[in-house]
Amino acid sequence: MKRASTEKGKASDMLYGINPVSEALKAGRRHIKQLYLASGRRDGRVDALEELASKRNVPVSRVESVTLEKVTGTRQHQGAALDAGALPGVHPQELVAAAEKRGEAPFLVFLDSVEDPRNLGAIVRSALCAGAHGVVLPKDRSAQLTPLVSKSSAGALEHLPVSVVTNLAKTMEELKKEGLWFAGLDAQGDSSLFGGDFSGPLGIVVGSEGKGLRPLVKKGCDFIVSIPLKGEVDSLNASVAASLVMYEVVRQRQA
Amino acid sequence: MKRASTEKGKASDMLYGINPVSEALKAGRRHIKQLYLASGRRDGRVDALEELASKRNVPVSRVESVTLEKVTGTRQHQGAALDAGALPGVHPQELVAAAEKRGEAPFLVFLDSVEDPRNLGAIVRSALCAGAHGVVLPKDRSAQLTPLVSKSSAGALEHLPVSVVTNLAKTMEELKKEGLWFAGLDAQGDSSLFGGDFSGPLGIVVGSEGKGLRPLVKKGCDFIVSIPLKGEVDSLNASVAASLVMYEVVRQRQA
Repeated sequence: MKRASTEKGKASDMLYGINPVSEALKAGRRHIKQLYLASGRRDGRVDALEELASKRNVPVSRVESVTLEKVTGTRQHQGAALDAGALPGVHPQELVAAAEKRGEAPFLVFLDSVEDPRNLGAIVRSALCAGAHGVVLPKDRSAQLTPLVSKSSAGALEHLPVSVVTNLAKTMEELKKEGLWFAGLDAQGDSSLFGGDFSGPLGIVVGSEGKGLRPLVKKGCDFIVSIPLKGEVDSLNASVAASLVMYEVVRQRQA
Repeated sequence: MKRASTEKGKASDMLYGINPVSEALKAGRRHIKQLYLASGRRDGRVDALEELASKRNVPVSRVESVTLEKVTGTRQHQGAALDAGALPGVHPQELVAAAEKRGEAPFLVFLDSVEDPRNLGAIVRSALCAGAHGVVLPKDRSAQLTPLVSKSSAGALEHLPVSVVTNLAKTMEELKKEGLWFAGLDAQGDSSLFGGDFSGPLGIVVGSEGKGLRPLVKKGCDFIVSIPLKGEVDSLNASVAASLVMYEVVRQRQA
């Protein structure tokens, strides 16, 4: 198995917010350069970050809140910023291998054109909670793995492997050879979400809010399920829809 | 059955965004005063609002985009604002009566201290899609029914009745006399979400992000369920968690 490039040339990320910073320090998946904390702030959660950093031998600077705002580009820093390298690249087949190593049927989440970073973050958070082995998304026409996504994921992005691929449909074809089935979520499904069989090795495929799956991606799915919808507003938030599919997998695998 | 006050003294709402404005015009639950549309914008969705307003005999003004920004207090107006009266007040017992009139087992969503208006909006959107008969929330320690909530609900707030009550625990006691059971969502549940029985007349009770249910509200629940969680980040977004419970009701009632 080839290891994907670790994107050495990539600029580093300036993470911000208590959860992303804390989870990045705990997860240890990034090369950490420096932790910045707001000076003159009495906040137990900020102090806890300082302690965590010292255990990890990460240098800490206390800086003015305005400096944090400047380096992070947002007011949502909560008194903490972490200068860190990009997340390591992960090949989709590594996600499958990791599942099998744990003796579990692979459960991957494919995202087709989810462009809102907050939705991407929320989906990553749910995917980690649902026990998915990883997320796969295309490098174009998709939100990428920015600090805002880590913030929106409540730091889950620091733990869950996310594989960024050139061609989603092609990656699906490759993983079919490894035994995965693909279940797409779309408005016009073959069956209700609750009628699908999600017990085996599985990739679920979720599209963007409002637009659904692109034709080639949809064609690559083994079956299409729909979420039953009532009422006058006939769509769910993208992260809610994705979470409902993920937890149907949880439900079926528990039973 | 007493009809709750329609809050005549309340200041009107300045709704904004294509979906809230469109759904408010379609739903007809508010007293509509005036529709403001951005001048000089060629946008089919804005034009469709003008047509909808003319069918409803609602006066339309074309104004500069900066004026829209001023009257709505946001840049997220998408070229449309609607000056409208507040939503009519609804008594919780009316929600039960409406369900029974449709020959359906009542399905209400109680929200304890959901303070983020975006989460409240997302929950209302999911509740409408899941076929819930209404939402009940306390007048204190909760986000209220603002234009931002309508925007975050994609306009679902214009259709789904939401009852604002003084005391959530007391309202639960009253509705138990009408035959409702209450299922609370909390981290320490009696059983997994997927082990609960949601087939009968039901109120589900969901707390705030991170904090869970308040003691009196929790005590008023007939049983408590938990969402199975894996991974290092042990909580879901509040609107995702609420949606998972709502759709477990949908699943069980379909079966």
